[in-house]
Amino acid sequence: MSHNTFGHLFRVTTWGESHGPAIGCVVDGCPPMIPLTEADLQPWLDQRKPGGSRFVTQRKESDTARILSGVFDDGDGPVTTGTPISILIENEDQRSKDYGEIARAYRPGHADYAYQAKYGVRDHRGGGRSSARETASRVAAGALARKVLGDGIRIRAGVVQIGPHRIAPDQIDFDAVHTNPLFAASAEVVGDWEAYLDSIRKAGSSVGAVVALEVTGVPAGWGAPLYGKLDSELAAALMSINAAKGVEIGAGFEAAELTGEQNADEMRLDLNKQPVFLSNKAGGVLGGISTGQPVTARVAFKPTSSILTLRQTITRDGEETDLRTKGRHDPCVALRAVPVVEAMTACVLADAHLRHRAQVG
Amino acid sequence: MSHNTFGHLFRVTTWGESHGPAIGCVVDGCPPMIPLTEADLQPWLDQRKPGGSRFVTQRKESDTARILSGVFDDGDGPVTTGTPISILIENEDQRSKDYGEIARAYRPGHADYAYQAKYGVRDHRGGGRSSARETASRVAAGALARKVLGDGIRIRAGVVQIGPHRIAPDQIDFDAVHTNPLFAASAEVVGDWEAYLDSIRKAGSSVGAVVALEVTGVPAGWGAPLYGKLDSELAAALMSINAAKGVEIGAGFEAAELTGEQNADEMRLDLNKQPVFLSNKAGGVLGGISTGQPVTARVAFKPTSSILTLRQTITRDGEETDLRTKGRHDPCVALRAVPVVEAMTACVLADAHLRHRAQVG
Amino acid sequence: MSHNTFGHLFRVTTWGESHGPAIGCVVDGCPPMIPLTEADLQPWLDQRKPGGSRFVTQRKESDTARILSGVFDDGDGPVTTGTPISILIENEDQRSKDYGEIARAYRPGHADYAYQAKYGVRDHRGGGRSSARETASRVAAGALARKVLGDGIRIRAGVVQIGPHRIAPDQIDFDAVHTNPLFAASAEVVGDWEAYLDSIRKAGSSVGAVVALEVTGVPAGWGAPLYGKLDSELAAALMSINAAKGVEIGAGFEAAELTGEQNADEMRLDLNKQPVFLSNKAGGVLGGISTGQPVTARVAFKPTSSILTLRQTITRDGEETDLRTKGRHDPCVALRAVPVVEAMTACVLADAHLRHRAQVG
Amino acid sequence: MSHNTFGHLFRVTTWGESHGPAIGCVVDGCPPMIPLTEADLQPWLDQRKPGGSRFVTQRKESDTARILSGVFDDGDGPVTTGTPISILIENEDQRSKDYGEIARAYRPGHADYAYQAKYGVRDHRGGGRSSARETASRVAAGALARKVLGDGIRIRAGVVQIGPHRIAPDQIDFDAVHTNPLFAASAEVVGDWEAYLDSIRKAGSSVGAVVALEVTGVPAGWGAPLYGKLDSELAAALMSINAAKGVEIGAGFEAAELTGEQNADEMRLDLNKQPVFLSNKAGGVLGGISTGQPVTARVAFKPTSSILTLRQTITRDGEETDLRTKGRHDPCVALRAVPVVEAMTACVLADAHLRHRAQVG
Repeated sequence: MSHNTFGHLFRVTTWGESHGPAIGCVVDGCPPMIPLTEADLQPWLDQRKPGGSRFVTQRKESDTARILSGVFDDGDGPVTTGTPISILIENEDQRSKDYGEIARAYRPGHADYAYQAKYGVRDHRGGGRSSARETASRVAAGALARKVLGDGIRIRAGVVQIGPHRIAPDQIDFDAVHTNPLFAASAEVVGDWEAYLDSIRKAGSSVGAVVALEVTGVPAGWGAPLYGKLDSELAAALMSINAAKGVEIGAGFEAAELTGEQNADEMRLDLNKQPVFLSNKAGGVLGGISTGQPVTARVAFKPTSSILTLRQTITRDGEETDLRTKGRHDPCVALRAVPVVEAMTACVLADAHLRHRAQVG
Repeated sequence: MSHNTFGHLFRVTTWGESHGPAIGCVVDGCPPMIPLTEADLQPWLDQRKPGGSRFVTQRKESDTARILSGVFDDGDGPVTTGTPISILIENEDQRSKDYGEIARAYRPGHADYAYQAKYGVRDHRGGGRSSARETASRVAAGALARKVLGDGIRIRAGVVQIGPHRIAPDQIDFDAVHTNPLFAASAEVVGDWEAYLDSIRKAGSSVGAVVALEVTGVPAGWGAPLYGKLDSELAAALMSINAAKGVEIGAGFEAAELTGEQNADEMRLDLNKQPVFLSNKAGGVLGGISTGQPVTARVAFKPTSSILTLRQTITRDGEETDLRTKGRHDPCVALRAVPVVEAMTACVLADAHLRHRAQVG
Repeated sequence: MSHNTFGHLFRVTTWGESHGPAIGCVVDGCPPMIPLTEADLQPWLDQRKPGGSRFVTQRKESDTARILSGVFDDGDGPVTTGTPISILIENEDQRSKDYGEIARAYRPGHADYAYQAKYGVRDHRGGGRSSARETASRVAAGALARKVLGDGIRIRAGVVQIGPHRIAPDQIDFDAVHTNPLFAASAEVVGDWEAYLDSIRKAGSSVGAVVALEVTGVPAGWGAPLYGKLDSELAAALMSINAAKGVEIGAGFEAAELTGEQNADEMRLDLNKQPVFLSNKAGGVLGGISTGQPVTARVAFKPTSSILTLRQTITRDGEETDLRTKGRHDPCVALRAVPVVEAMTACVLADAHLRHRAQVG
Repeated sequence: MSHNTFGHLFRVTTWGESHGPAIGCVVDGCPPMIPLTEADLQPWLDQRKPGGSRFVTQRKESDTARILSGVFDDGDGPVTTGTPISILIENEDQRSKDYGEIARAYRPGHADYAYQAKYGVRDHRGGGRSSARETASRVAAGALARKVLGDGIRIRAGVVQIGPHRIAPDQIDFDAVHTNPLFAASAEVVGDWEAYLDSIRKAGSSVGAVVALEVTGVPAGWGAPLYGKLDSELAAALMSINAAKGVEIGAGFEAAELTGEQNADEMRLDLNKQPVFLSNKAGGVLGGISTGQPVTARVAFKPTSSILTLRQTITRDGEETDLRTKGRHDPCVALRAVPVVEAMTACVLADAHLRHRAQVG
């Protein structure tokens, strides 16, 4: 796995900057003979794309994915050929004029200073490579990973906390996520949350959030000891998403407060003599290997660092200054992270599926 | 990175089962000319080894590391030669008789069922490959990683929560960690925590915990976009430790409750005109790249799954049964995870150091 | 390294089919601050591009490379930023009508049957992924690798044998390579070779060839034991080129006939007390590590498999048939392999350079 | 793939120096449930081990392999468990006193100078890491790879040229290889070759050789475009063997002299309507993917660099000197390379098998 490549066998390499001509990805290792057209990718990209509501950045991008390779129609419709699938998404609304001042000053909370310190140069326009715009490539790759996994595996995420407002665990309803512009995993909170987020937005501020994830249909046996653990790979994938600051599997940090009796999920047999677990504190993973239970996780996102309030910072010339980040931004970047969480999970699982098949057949 | 190998350039491959003849690791990619003897490894292994107090398993292992390759004394004392360093630790106290029943029945909360489902076979003795005994290899590799990093980088971890008992953030004192058998990051809590853990131990129960981590001295610029982010790699490393269920970087899940104003660490210049941050919500990493601030993280560990209470489970022959896990166990497995958290962090940083040097010089 | 990715740290991922909309590559891990524009790539692509003489395919492609990411102009001209460099080359002259018959029948000597057997589907148009057209991406990446290596390292290749016609080792003159359309490493053979190749071309036949390689300026110390040997990596790189069937380093197969006295290159000191070798049977590599001598290699290429003579083959429907490969082809595919041999060598060396810097500093 | 690790999914990491306490390897990614004991490894190690005839080094090593992990007997005999298999071979006859002088002076043709230039230090005793002794680990791993491949795949190699003496292609008989101490692939040459090699040996000289390889039973479809080509991986594997200087696949360098008509293997159907090739110039690989034909290759080995003749060299202190390499050596190192060629081929194929299964199922 190199810097900009994710996965071992189902491998996704992404490229592109926020204000360059295009972004994209190359997916290598995809199994052949999977029906695939651009129409399979677009619905997922549409979920993530900007401009959909007042709660997300007003940048206008159609996020139209073009497939440039790896697919061939031999008469029965286009299918994957087993060769690399190159996907390209043009940048349409770069508006670089918005970003003049930040060429000089480092935006607090952004990657500006770190990139400059590492490379001695950075594409400051819209955050360059560190922009959340890159996640469109992840979503396109994730759409492909879902096709590898098939319909038996269902991956769903939704916002369960925004600032101080939480959805109680027993109230989480992933069916609600796509019925509201906040990707909230409960229809009941939407009114309150909209009001709250409007106040944040109007104040030129931003707020963090937590996204919950549930995957059903993962068979027992995926993942592997010890540095290829399914939960370890999932943690890496989710923590690699822009603004992510924490990842929990199953009971997560709550597990620290449990006793062994409370935590270890007991087992029985169901009517078909198949193993069932009586709880799922493990989040569907034991010893790094899936158990057949739903895989559950939670990801914490920090607030968008771009805010209208004047903030203290320094310039690359070594001077102190104050900076207000103008331009188009998300008051809560985590909202648009929901499809990205799902996409990265799909990529991890497709990879785990192929790796398992390699070793065990 | 394969299943049992960790790292890209500083690569650690571990092998061995709890009750086999030995465990060990091979470290490849280590820079040459680093003074190294077995005495450099042993102090770190001694921190992790069992039998040190009544709060950890009573298994008796000296955990003596032998270096079998990759080191040569050309007259000025043994140094690394740039070739693979093979480290072997013999298992001395296997006592397989303790583990007869679990050949048949899956221990709830353990990896038994998952391994069997994946491989169709498992070494059930003491958990086989999934035993925490494997972490001795990680600690040995971590000791080597520390030598690669040098004394300027200081890696410290300690227990900051055990069950419901927490150390307040402003009370955390990593200097206290090695002054008490609980690895607690505060001398003041030790009495209460010992009493609490004694009650857990006597009840044949167990409890979870949280370990905090702080690394000082990491220069700005380590890590890389986007799937080689320093925090993503750290999350993978820490989540790969036995019993880990959650990882936070910097403010972690607390970041979900913050506003952009509260979260984005402002910058000023110090008296030497060097950049300083006015806070460290980021945990020393922005855009996946270190900023020069301390790298901070927290890891949640579940309670030891082996407990004396009878638990419902099934056998591999498809029958229901009840199981009590006898044998020698840790009432709080997280205590001995403290040196492992440090070791994995050292490996991540040594790897990041070499990768940064490769690309940027 | 995955299927379509080459290199460990300087990593090249290529994608695209002969008759798709475009081909391209993503280069990850490139050091930052290297001046780079499309004009740096084009001269190398022009060397390889079709249509340059009657001895190569008459397909018309401008092979214009576009850089889509990873480069930024901060005022002093465009430089690499350390992020992935995506390069795209449009296919302009696909003419798929030429390839109707081969959708059904497997062309002998081509990858058609093997791809179909592996994947159950293949893009038959112009050979799809297995077309030599893919090597344009390699040449683009190689141009970038040369910039990483700098001017001190000079990589030169040329044709030294075509069918039965050879250039004697002491007559090889790499300066002659770009003065003739055959890439011959001697001006004196050009007339005879042109006549010979014209006869092959007019007969609708083809012929194999050998390309020799010499790299000067490689410092001692690049490469590594034992599976990262410089000659092993070079062998993999060169054997991965379309139509390659053999690779020699230094004395190569001739070494089988030598005695130890003849083969082991003796050493002395030069006037500056620097080590000099009195011969170079080793081809600049000992134990997999460069010695500072010129790195020399030879690559054998088979004749172009597309010929006008009727050949026996079978169809994918399991019938016998006879096939004549019409369309535009090279009478000696090895000619256009010369820039590809150089490019792959540049990629191997750039990667070895970064890996060496990582481990040894 | 790191420096001392070979393979993508069936991964072999080797470690150890010629005169250290032991050498060994860790094999990760092996499928589970394969019966395996040390007795499965030993016959292959015995083929390679020194001291078997006057034509190989007189070093006395039993090369007894111990399996330290990854195998478990659950009642039906020991089987692989899917976890890493650690194999250890002790060094028994180091005799370091033989090697005093070479601590100072670089042996011409050996890796001494290159290692010193790279690392600034080297274990000079018996060549340290660059000793052919390391190949015992490759042979042990190869024995395991053969078990993964099963009996349907037959891998055979033999010496077909020694110095100027060659076996004609149509006289090659792999059945003869293990009936003579020279591993010659023809019983008829043995007498002459023994006389020739005796003269070399008595003169304190050495000579090169060529080893041919044939693998039957490889199904069509293994390997992958474009940098994971089966022939590319084979070239890397074979060129990584000590003293290898050239690798050919199929017709190899002879292909340079062929016309397209002569080279492209025509196809027909056999009586069972299965594809058959009318020749095998391709060596069983087209476009990097196996065709179902025998995979054939040839490897050139240079003469042993250790000879009794005085040779000019320099010391690490920068002085000129003359050196005679005393000690125990092989007059033709290629003889003992025969089992190593087979072992590396087995590892490449086991890896290709697992990778194919991953992608295509």
